[in-house]
Amino acid sequence: MVATTQSLEQLCINSIRFLAIDAVEKASSGHPGLPMGAAPMAFVLWDKFLRFNPKNPHWFNRDRFVLSAGHGCMLQYALLYLTGYDSVSLDDIKQFRQWESKTPGHPENFMTEGVEVTTGPLGQGISNAVGLAVAEAHLAARFNKPDCNLVDHYTYAIASDGDLMEGVSNEACSLAGHLGLGKLIVLYDDNHISIDGETELAFTEDRMKRYEALGWHTQFIEDGNTDLEGLEKAIANAKAVTDKPSIIGVRTIIGFGSPNKANSHDVHGAALGKDEVSATRQELGWEYGEFEVPEDALNHFRKAVDRGAQSEQEWNQVFEQYKSKYPEDANNFQQLISGQLPAGWEDALPKYTPDDKADATRNQSGAVLNALSPVLPGLLGGSADLAPSNKTYVKSSGDFQKGAYENRNFRFGVREHGMGAVCNAIALHNSGLIPYGATFLIFTDYMRGALRLSALSRAGVIWVMTHDSIALGEDGPTHQPIEQVASLRAIPNLAVFRPADGNETSGAYKVAVERAANNPGAPTLLCLSRQKLPNLAGSSIENAAKGGYVLSDSEGTPELILIGTGGEVELCVNAAEQLRQEGKKVRVVSLPSWELFEAQDEAYKESVLPKAVTKRVAVEAGTTFGWCRYVGSEGAVIGIDRFGASSPGGVALKNFGFTTENVLATAKNVLG
Amino acid sequence: MVATTQSLEQLCINSIRFLAIDAVEKASSGHPGLPMGAAPMAFVLWDKFLRFNPKNPHWFNRDRFVLSAGHGCMLQYALLYLTGYDSVSLDDIKQFRQWESKTPGHPENFMTEGVEVTTGPLGQGISNAVGLAVAEAHLAARFNKPDCNLVDHYTYAIASDGDLMEGVSNEACSLAGHLGLGKLIVLYDDNHISIDGETELAFTEDRMKRYEALGWHTQFIEDGNTDLEGLEKAIANAKAVTDKPSIIGVRTIIGFGSPNKANSHDVHGAALGKDEVSATRQELGWEYGEFEVPEDALNHFRKAVDRGAQSEQEWNQVFEQYKSKYPEDANNFQQLISGQLPAGWEDALPKYTPDDKADATRNQSGAVLNALSPVLPGLLGGSADLAPSNKTYVKSSGDFQKGAYENRNFRFGVREHGMGAVCNAIALHNSGLIPYGATFLIFTDYMRGALRLSALSRAGVIWVMTHDSIALGEDGPTHQPIEQVASLRAIPNLAVFRPADGNETSGAYKVAVERAANNPGAPTLLCLSRQKLPNLAGSSIENAAKGGYVLSDSEGTPELILIGTGGEVELCVNAAEQLRQEGKKVRVVSLPSWELFEAQDEAYKESVLPKAVTKRVAVEAGTTFGWCRYVGSEGAVIGIDRFGASSPGGVALKNFGFTTENVLATAKNVLG
Repeated sequence: MVATTQSLEQLCINSIRFLAIDAVEKASSGHPGLPMGAAPMAFVLWDKFLRFNPKNPHWFNRDRFVLSAGHGCMLQYALLYLTGYDSVSLDDIKQFRQWESKTPGHPENFMTEGVEVTTGPLGQGISNAVGLAVAEAHLAARFNKPDCNLVDHYTYAIASDGDLMEGVSNEACSLAGHLGLGKLIVLYDDNHISIDGETELAFTEDRMKRYEALGWHTQFIEDGNTDLEGLEKAIANAKAVTDKPSIIGVRTIIGFGSPNKANSHDVHGAALGKDEVSATRQELGWEYGEFEVPEDALNHFRKAVDRGAQSEQEWNQVFEQYKSKYPEDANNFQQLISGQLPAGWEDALPKYTPDDKADATRNQSGAVLNALSPVLPGLLGGSADLAPSNKTYVKSSGDFQKGAYENRNFRFGVREHGMGAVCNAIALHNSGLIPYGATFLIFTDYMRGALRLSALSRAGVIWVMTHDSIALGEDGPTHQPIEQVASLRAIPNLAVFRPADGNETSGAYKVAVERAANNPGAPTLLCLSRQKLPNLAGSSIENAAKGGYVLSDSEGTPELILIGTGGEVELCVNAAEQLRQEGKKVRVVSLPSWELFEAQDEAYKESVLPKAVTKRVAVEAGTTFGWCRYVGSEGAVIGIDRFGASSPGGVALKNFGFTTENVLATAKNVLG
Repeated sequence: MVATTQSLEQLCINSIRFLAIDAVEKASSGHPGLPMGAAPMAFVLWDKFLRFNPKNPHWFNRDRFVLSAGHGCMLQYALLYLTGYDSVSLDDIKQFRQWESKTPGHPENFMTEGVEVTTGPLGQGISNAVGLAVAEAHLAARFNKPDCNLVDHYTYAIASDGDLMEGVSNEACSLAGHLGLGKLIVLYDDNHISIDGETELAFTEDRMKRYEALGWHTQFIEDGNTDLEGLEKAIANAKAVTDKPSIIGVRTIIGFGSPNKANSHDVHGAALGKDEVSATRQELGWEYGEFEVPEDALNHFRKAVDRGAQSEQEWNQVFEQYKSKYPEDANNFQQLISGQLPAGWEDALPKYTPDDKADATRNQSGAVLNALSPVLPGLLGGSADLAPSNKTYVKSSGDFQKGAYENRNFRFGVREHGMGAVCNAIALHNSGLIPYGATFLIFTDYMRGALRLSALSRAGVIWVMTHDSIALGEDGPTHQPIEQVASLRAIPNLAVFRPADGNETSGAYKVAVERAANNPGAPTLLCLSRQKLPNLAGSSIENAAKGGYVLSDSEGTPELILIGTGGEVELCVNAAEQLRQEGKKVRVVSLPSWELFEAQDEAYKESVLPKAVTKRVAVEAGTTFGWCRYVGSEGAVIGIDRFGASSPGGVALKNFGFTTENVLATAKNVLG
């Protein structure tokens, strides 16, 4: 296969290959196989179809590209460099997988401009792509006019066998098929190899048939290594199908070009080794040295700069026309994609007094969503088939469906993990959309992969999780959270909120919306009750937003501090009342969010939980794991460290010790 | 639809319906819709096909039945009662969803004999069914002879729309299709309703086509409410297909018989209400009172008792023949299904001294699996496409594949959650099999639903999780565990082990195998390193099995205790050496498992971590969340509470403070 002269296309494709090979070799770490095998499809996509401006990675109307097979990230880094992004230089490529480099081991949107979402964990990227396409469809439906296609871009993904095996991708792709997302195009790198070896070992389903069943348009390219024309036709075909998402199965040889390692799992995730690198250079007739890119290839790739500038300029003109014809819409559009929250939006947050009826915080959450939707045009979301239980339906809008993409209520189906990845991507579309996704708190277990990524990739998502403790009752231990709140608190960069009443719920949303609208964004997760809770004297939006505050106090230095969250604050309030009647100086602290509280300054924290006051009782209907932080060695925690039980919620709370009596008894024990 | 006389079949089917209706009504809680709609298919299955002995729920060769749509559990409880199980009486049914009743809100195998696996979280049950079928196929291949089918039973599941939407089920079912599990039959209750409403809202894929793509045999029954003959034929057809799993889509009306609520989401998850209960009685011509079962129906159902006794007796005879012809195999079989571990098995556990070469605990884990496989005939398992990385391949056996079910290495593919549910079920097949499932520790996030259920349902599974910290290096923050170990510790009934060296790894397996073989079983999760670690002086299998122990000590009362786990124990050892040279009295404690340590008696725990010694430093390359428990307010924790970074592992460890120098500095700070 030694070619004495290579076509320009081959020069370009091999440039991608060898940047990947050399970078992985230098790092002695990484995945060369996919970049080598998928270089042709990626080249055709980036060269002939993808619309982007290398000098403006944030251009609103750019096509979105996702490398779902994130381990193959050298493929993406090579393309970012070659096409002229400032975010990836040749030096950056030489620093592949090194401390603080712009080219980390899997694509990180927060490290490298041009990377839209963070991938690596398989199945996430392709599911993100569904979310990016959802965002485009929604914005197009809201803003486009018959004579003006303001919002008009495609979402492309390159996915691997592993992506297709993962359950999350079936969830998201089933949803995509149902929604008829016609501007989503997935290139499936069908190389028949995964870490264990041949995919024959475990993955023999008919992939294209499954995707047809999911409502996708499918095509197959037999020779994805050399049939560039076929690839081009297929992508063009896919673009022409406007009522279904498209998947193109592309048969490739992993590690194409490596004479001894191609088509084996050895080339998947390890450097080729010095000898094989040489052998590959020889095999592909590549005379260029380490990290050397032939001038012709680089010049060709760099045409993307002018092309991109022109694309963006053309779009700016479209926007100018739009603005002159539809000034109000244009203003709304600009306001939305700016990401700035409308002035005074928080005035819409419901406020409560103790005279307001007791209510479940899940209901109060629903009230917030319905109150905010009119004033926050970017707010939209839905539930994984639990809208009536999560109370997430916004009555002023309809269902987001094919032909009705302008609506703001999503019906995710029983697909928590898919919902998670889709919501992450709606946020990372970076157009001012603030997505919320909801299910039962227990089923955060089903979507932790996506929850973690929302925190890591700084996605401004609001996670609305109801039925937050054993108090949910009869559904029993499979549904009653025990360890969920603690285990979510342990995720860095995720703020967990467990509000005690209506004001705290509004406060949680104030924080969540602000975090989502920040740049970069950050996710917030709300834990909401099924059962009714009273509105507490002393609660307020401002207090809740601090994450922890003094709800009530005695005169002077407290002898004892009762700390509660969510539904258990009420027990603390009741116990404190009795203790005060007995002459004790008791403070009640509500601690709806550890993360927000810890972010306050030391003086504030000391004022709420003075170090000198060591007699403390914490009460939370969940695991005691981690509470030692706030109660120390002289305190006590009322929690539950075993699985729950099926019974009416009140019976469960009582039998597991969540009663005023038990708080009193524990408090007296601590007081000594 | 008022029938003046009902056929015996209708009497039976309506008996199921009304027990469910009445139980849910009495509890004012529960899901009547599915039992009402799925009663016909369940009746045909239990009446004509399912082989079981109501008086012996543990009979080895019983068919397995799984209600994957666990919310419809009154369907199963009704059948258990009607067919004569002692585990569910009429009183138990009246106590549906009450504290400590035998009829909890979702089926719990540990509460109610006759329930094979715990379901409720959608997608788990159908995936468990795949695992039960795997166990049957494996045991059949190992023990059956050409003239003797000792192991011969079917696995049936009833699944819902929600089950099919969940990604985990696609994973497990793709695997089932690949494996050609011909004795797995799923009845899919296709009622077009989920909590949000019509499945048209979100779930319009072609289900049967997807299952065909997954390699299943598919059929469809248009009228699952009345076509009993069609149902019977379909199940018979499914049984006749021996090289593929079968799914039968059964179109039903949810809440069949309720004149005002049938076919709506209102009947899915709430009691009918007094009026509608009456109306349904009228609609179906049911003259019987609350919880009253017509004698003819009960007698018919109770024939299952004699039938079952006979089935078991026949099988006993088969076993006797088997025993006389194949005494050694019979002995092995009995030994295996007894669940008793072979005497002296633990002698095979590798032991190490500090002179043995440093090695990654993932490698040492692989050595254990290979050493134990010959002496533990029930041990089998695999990885979610990471066998070369997890080191879980057992060389003395081959791949479990179609036509080679006797092999003990599973190739799960990139399907962590499916693997989890399958492993749970292999354990809950209760035949002495000890399954292990492996992936990267970070991807426990993908399978928490199944991990939690392994703990809740007391499944004796060994979870083998490698690449346990930032030390894994270049793959970066998407792969580097931070909060995983802590969040797994928070799951009740799951023992988490993070061994520091070879002896501790062997100790972890000793505990894990014993926990798996207990009755009831319990799962154990191992966190193993990618990087090499030295074998430590003072470590031993016995010590590790206590969960925490003194690795080394100074004379007299320590001034300072250094506590480490896994790879960080070495840093404690090094720091202690230096401190002792400076005249400090330092104790080093290795704490590989919090759960095992806490289970020791108070005297032992006090001897390891005396309360009076308050100056402590804990070192673990993971979140500090929860460590306050062991270091108190005068101690310090060296951990990492942010996401990691892509770089060589050693660089990451150093930059994040996991060095002997930092331990020293922290220790001196604590000592004051």
